[in-house]
Amino acid sequence: MENAGFRSGSIDSLHHPSEDDDDEMVDIAGATLDFSATEDDPPLGSGSYEEPGSSSGAAGMNGGGPSKPLDPLEETLPGLGTYEDFNTIDWVREKSKDRERHREITNKSKQSTMALLHSVSDAFSGWLLMLLVGLMSGALAGGIDIAAHWLTDMKEGICLVGFWFNHEHCCWTYNETTFQERDRCPQWQSWAELITGTAEGPFAYIVNYMMYIFWALLFAFLAVALVRAFAPYACGSGIPEIKTILSGFIIRGYLGKWTLIIKTITLVLAVSSGLSLGKEGPLVHVACCCANILCHLFTKYRKNEAKRREVLSAAAAVGVSVAFGAPIGGVLFSLEEVSYYFPLKTLWRSFFAALVAAFTLRSINPFGNSRLVLFYVEFHAPWHLVELAPFILLGIFGGLWGALFIRANIAWCRRRKTTRLGHYPVTEVLVVAAITAIIAFPNSYTRMSGAELIAELFNDCSLLDSSQLCGYKQLNNTQTAVGNSLADRPAGVGLYTALWQLALALIFKIVITVITFGMKVPSGLFIPSMAVGAIAGRLLGVGMEQLAYYNHDWFIFKGWCSPGADCITPGLYAMVGAAACLGGVTRMTVSLVVIMFELTGGLEYIVPLMAATMTSKWVADALGREGIYEAHIRLNGYPFLEAKEEFEHSSLAVDVMRPRRSDPALAVLTQESMTVGEVETLVESTHYSGFPVVVSQESQRLVGFVLRRDLLISIDNARKRQEGIVSASQVLFTEHAPAQDPDGPPPLRLRGILDLSPFTVTDHTPMDITVDIFRKLGLRQCLVTHNGRLLGIITKKDILKHMAHIANRDPDSILFN
Amino acid sequence: MENAGFRSGSIDSLHHPSEDDDDEMVDIAGATLDFSATEDDPPLGSGSYEEPGSSSGAAGMNGGGPSKPLDPLEETLPGLGTYEDFNTIDWVREKSKDRERHREITNKSKQSTMALLHSVSDAFSGWLLMLLVGLMSGALAGGIDIAAHWLTDMKEGICLVGFWFNHEHCCWTYNETTFQERDRCPQWQSWAELITGTAEGPFAYIVNYMMYIFWALLFAFLAVALVRAFAPYACGSGIPEIKTILSGFIIRGYLGKWTLIIKTITLVLAVSSGLSLGKEGPLVHVACCCANILCHLFTKYRKNEAKRREVLSAAAAVGVSVAFGAPIGGVLFSLEEVSYYFPLKTLWRSFFAALVAAFTLRSINPFGNSRLVLFYVEFHAPWHLVELAPFILLGIFGGLWGALFIRANIAWCRRRKTTRLGHYPVTEVLVVAAITAIIAFPNSYTRMSGAELIAELFNDCSLLDSSQLCGYKQLNNTQTAVGNSLADRPAGVGLYTALWQLALALIFKIVITVITFGMKVPSGLFIPSMAVGAIAGRLLGVGMEQLAYYNHDWFIFKGWCSPGADCITPGLYAMVGAAACLGGVTRMTVSLVVIMFELTGGLEYIVPLMAATMTSKWVADALGREGIYEAHIRLNGYPFLEAKEEFEHSSLAVDVMRPRRSDPALAVLTQESMTVGEVETLVESTHYSGFPVVVSQESQRLVGFVLRRDLLISIDNARKRQEGIVSASQVLFTEHAPAQDPDGPPPLRLRGILDLSPFTVTDHTPMDITVDIFRKLGLRQCLVTHNGRLLGIITKKDILKHMAHIANRDPDSILFN
Repeated sequence: MENAGFRSGSIDSLHHPSEDDDDEMVDIAGATLDFSATEDDPPLGSGSYEEPGSSSGAAGMNGGGPSKPLDPLEETLPGLGTYEDFNTIDWVREKSKDRERHREITNKSKQSTMALLHSVSDAFSGWLLMLLVGLMSGALAGGIDIAAHWLTDMKEGICLVGFWFNHEHCCWTYNETTFQERDRCPQWQSWAELITGTAEGPFAYIVNYMMYIFWALLFAFLAVALVRAFAPYACGSGIPEIKTILSGFIIRGYLGKWTLIIKTITLVLAVSSGLSLGKEGPLVHVACCCANILCHLFTKYRKNEAKRREVLSAAAAVGVSVAFGAPIGGVLFSLEEVSYYFPLKTLWRSFFAALVAAFTLRSINPFGNSRLVLFYVEFHAPWHLVELAPFILLGIFGGLWGALFIRANIAWCRRRKTTRLGHYPVTEVLVVAAITAIIAFPNSYTRMSGAELIAELFNDCSLLDSSQLCGYKQLNNTQTAVGNSLADRPAGVGLYTALWQLALALIFKIVITVITFGMKVPSGLFIPSMAVGAIAGRLLGVGMEQLAYYNHDWFIFKGWCSPGADCITPGLYAMVGAAACLGGVTRMTVSLVVIMFELTGGLEYIVPLMAATMTSKWVADALGREGIYEAHIRLNGYPFLEAKEEFEHSSLAVDVMRPRRSDPALAVLTQESMTVGEVETLVESTHYSGFPVVVSQESQRLVGFVLRRDLLISIDNARKRQEGIVSASQVLFTEHAPAQDPDGPPPLRLRGILDLSPFTVTDHTPMDITVDIFRKLGLRQCLVTHNGRLLGIITKKDILKHMAHIANRDPDSILFN
Repeated sequence: MENAGFRSGSIDSLHHPSEDDDDEMVDIAGATLDFSATEDDPPLGSGSYEEPGSSSGAAGMNGGGPSKPLDPLEETLPGLGTYEDFNTIDWVREKSKDRERHREITNKSKQSTMALLHSVSDAFSGWLLMLLVGLMSGALAGGIDIAAHWLTDMKEGICLVGFWFNHEHCCWTYNETTFQERDRCPQWQSWAELITGTAEGPFAYIVNYMMYIFWALLFAFLAVALVRAFAPYACGSGIPEIKTILSGFIIRGYLGKWTLIIKTITLVLAVSSGLSLGKEGPLVHVACCCANILCHLFTKYRKNEAKRREVLSAAAAVGVSVAFGAPIGGVLFSLEEVSYYFPLKTLWRSFFAALVAAFTLRSINPFGNSRLVLFYVEFHAPWHLVELAPFILLGIFGGLWGALFIRANIAWCRRRKTTRLGHYPVTEVLVVAAITAIIAFPNSYTRMSGAELIAELFNDCSLLDSSQLCGYKQLNNTQTAVGNSLADRPAGVGLYTALWQLALALIFKIVITVITFGMKVPSGLFIPSMAVGAIAGRLLGVGMEQLAYYNHDWFIFKGWCSPGADCITPGLYAMVGAAACLGGVTRMTVSLVVIMFELTGGLEYIVPLMAATMTSKWVADALGREGIYEAHIRLNGYPFLEAKEEFEHSSLAVDVMRPRRSDPALAVLTQESMTVGEVETLVESTHYSGFPVVVSQESQRLVGFVLRRDLLISIDNARKRQEGIVSASQVLFTEHAPAQDPDGPPPLRLRGILDLSPFTVTDHTPMDITVDIFRKLGLRQCLVTHNGRLLGIITKKDILKHMAHIANRDPDSILFN
């Protein structure tokens, strides 16, 4: 119940500096497709707590006397029951509103065939919406994949047949292509070939280098410029904000159509520019935008914040489903990582939407291999129990990297927020893009895109493989392959070169990712984290392989790794390392293992993955409790009540509630003894978002709770439209008017906007229980009583401040209600 | 807060008649390993609400004056904070207790190395427990599989090398075994061979028939006799009771060691007897018993009902994991179907335990094929969009069967409960076993066990297959197989015979399953349901195949089903049918699809499965909202508040609370004006489980809530141990004693047992919100206030009665608190 006018201060914390015309941008972004119900929509019954109660005799609304209990004004008073921007919703009220709506439709459906049809279509609208979300997200993801592929290749050269072909498509038509030379065809020309006429020599190399940097800078500039010009919310991965929104917060325009359009375009540009970022996180944001926009087609979802969040939960699953081609993993990701309120109905619908999206994506076939998954992996050799030791080592590495990355990234982002660095986002992006391009080009492992790199590192070397990573010495004896699998062999020159390059790439990726994540372009963290882990894993894997090859008589290798056997698969190490690093950064566990399981399609490798992910989580948790998303949420001061962590302090409700002992008494309204003028004075002299209503100042017995917004709208409306309402009019929250002066002005009846069922706890309630109540019911505020008398109030913000205080953090870092 | 002494009446509803010595049985079953904390365990601080509050000045406990705030009595008073049998637990109190314990350990850990070690071991005890649960359940499941396999074969013959070998093992040693004749070897003799010396002829057939019936009756008799003699709770599938227990109900002995031992043995016997039941549901019960017993090794779990339920949730996942070899499906089953309170920590631990169990089972290798899964399926042909129509048809069949099965089964079970039928459980089992054996033997598809039948129906016909189901006409042209897959061929005589037998088997299974499920033997429903669906699916699949073969020029087959192509896979139809029927009965959705996905290992067939499961659920829901487990829960009158269904009526808290308008006023205690004698009189004159404490009778302002059990124990204890406590002693719930007669007896201070943070709602709170609060917080009761004055009380039972009343059911069918 703190400052409700946080608008201007809050913008700053949303990633864009406040010195320029950001406010206008927000308005553009949120102009037509606000996240919340637009204020012009008639609210679905603001006094919904009152209406169901047939037995309680729902009494007159503002304006109407007791004789007119259902004043039409009540239905149409605009703004009642809606929320301001950057405010927390009241889950209980929203859910109650939806149940009320559903009851109405069900009751009506017995009356006519039309109403019955309406009721049936209402019941199926959720499924239809899921279908649409799946189709739209799948199609968008396919488009993004294709466009990013094309633009990435554009940095290296161009197709003479048509500039809109990417390298691979360009060479498809070339019929002399053999397996080894699949990537070479005369139609595809590198920039050097096109400009200088030759593809060889140092000059050609420099031309290619320059063109690479040029395109990288161009794409990066376009990305950041578009974001800043049209949709400031399109930057970042979006997952921290989506988590906050799903927990019941309003950020208008964050999931609007401008954000969607700009994010889709700039995501392609940012990925193509070669920056160390991925498209997987932003795809979740894109899917949520789709869902939010499609919600506007259905009244049920347009008008109800709680119902809409159910759809958004499913959309988060859709995002991961199309990012990795892992529908089950996506659903678990939504459940484990993103969602706050995840009823079982949502589970089933999420799964449906995730599948639809995955199949839509497959029919677009952006990877050109008919595979559903982003990285298709197939290993030939089983793993041995001894290998658990290096897997756990990878887990430790992943945990360390995760924890250090989070600290470094948060420190850097805080620096960006607080110093002049944050004032030049375009310059920042251009500088980072230039550094990335300059360092990345010479090293083939950093030049290729993150996804390509990971695919190559996951790959198990086969006989025909010409990649540098498979540059083993050819053995001249009969130790050839069984099937497609290769026996362990000594490393050759090619492999040693590759290892050096990979080691350099590892250091580069570690450093550059820290400063890249959080810039003003769409940027996901999954691919860079996985790349770091995959490089480390592959290095360790090759090391183990060579160790085993040269020392197969050591006791640890004895019995399972005889010479000529294929006992160690470096690709598996890369996969385990990728999972460990991703786990360390995001603290996902089950969903991560399931995503990986869907990539490999076999339960065989779950144990290594689980060992590494578990170790990684434990190590990372020991160094810092928060995952990257929670850390960013806290950095931005969003009011997010983490559902996973237990509140462990022993404070009581009385220690957290306002007013404190030294503060002035709680501002309350009385149910029948105040005038309109007194109420207005009280409301204007405070900044609280709501006021308890009591029987009388003396008794302090609680009657209900009224929201500031509803109160102001109602009084304002009554003064304009209702005759005789002046400052001296009595404000009545009671059902029946008390005896009053017949000559005085008519009273203003406001029972309709009074929440007659406010949540209360006693002052002795331990805070762990109070926090549990807030989390589970999604409360915005809760009143505190002692022996039946009103004592104070606790808001979500108070709780977050209290938790920050306990953790020795600055309580004022919590910015919003 | 109704009758607390429901013990005797309740037994009846737990599947066993009340005329015999059931009470003794319960005592045997629950003698040493009660489900709940045993009463001798010192409770971990009954007044835990009071202790954390350093600021509230936790005052004197019973016995000690204000000068002795931490009376040792408080710590050791036996029974305080525990629950009676057949009562609902208070989740909030349990969770708060655990947090308090955790805080204590964390605080102490800073003081010494030992305490630090204790804290670390405490943190890891959950994981260790999960490991043990996984190992034990996996080992037990393996043992059950092996034993059931052996006993099932015993019905047909015996191994001459050693009677402890089953048919397959017996012939393993026989080295002349060829692929086709794998099942024939001289060491294995059918009973006819052993007795009459010949395996052929009508006489041998009759001997085999008789021996089959004999063994079936023997196994069935042993099963029912053991259940009745030692562990009446071992009967049924156990899932309805586990759902109820997980929702916070106490049934002592239901998960005790006797139940485990007897259920394990009788499950083997029941499955082997050939009754139409499966072992998958009971395996969930077995896993939960393991978990509950293992909980006794760890104080953290032994003493806390809420923490224990987290472990039980994971154990349910373990049960399904070992039943089907599907760990992810198991976790989702627990989440979707069984669990009530499923925090994310549990998700991760469940997954771990499910994997450990699956790998333990695999290392025991009971199926002899190194496969993790119960039915390994591999199809060669993709499905076509046109086939969705028959798949949806199967979904409709599954939904119809599910809804009708539930109605018929519940009607039959109600008949068993209410008529004399229930008095003869042994006779009933023997009669059903005899009927089953007599009808099942002549038909090879009913003679084989359910799991074998399903495996055969799922199977895709290969060239070498000698099974009757693959009795197609051999084609003499070159339309041979590609790889292992076969082109569609016309049905031969063998197949027609098989179809007739399958059709008869379908009718038999449908009828016999209705009367089998619910008998006094362990009986699961998964396998019979899946068998029904698989038969129907296979029939439809073969029908489609023949239709396509003879009419491949029809427009629906044109373009994808040319002659000689393998376009329709009857095995896939069987799988889809099995999923549809199982879905119709249990109303599982996601978990079912994921289990099937794990069986086939490919996303390819998820769409057919989903279409069928979804249709099945919709059709079944249209005919009756409840799944079989919810129906059995209601039949037994357990207090289960379904978390999935919305409460849709528009009543208010005031309509549900007690006392009703015509009832006498609520029985309340006052905080300082009553004597011990008055309190005792009030408690004894009512049957309520708890009493609100108010400031005074006039003001009715609420102070707290005290439980009958705690009150009686404390007064009893004080009268025995504390000097001067007589009937005239004042009972004080306040912190500070009021001025009192210095000559009078000393007051009895009971603030320590007073719950100072009772939940309250206002009388105007809509019931949908109240029900939500009860569900989400796991409340047992909630007080109702109006304008700050206490008005009444709502218990979980009141809510269930109200819901039964709305649904036009008998409110008195809710038996327990």
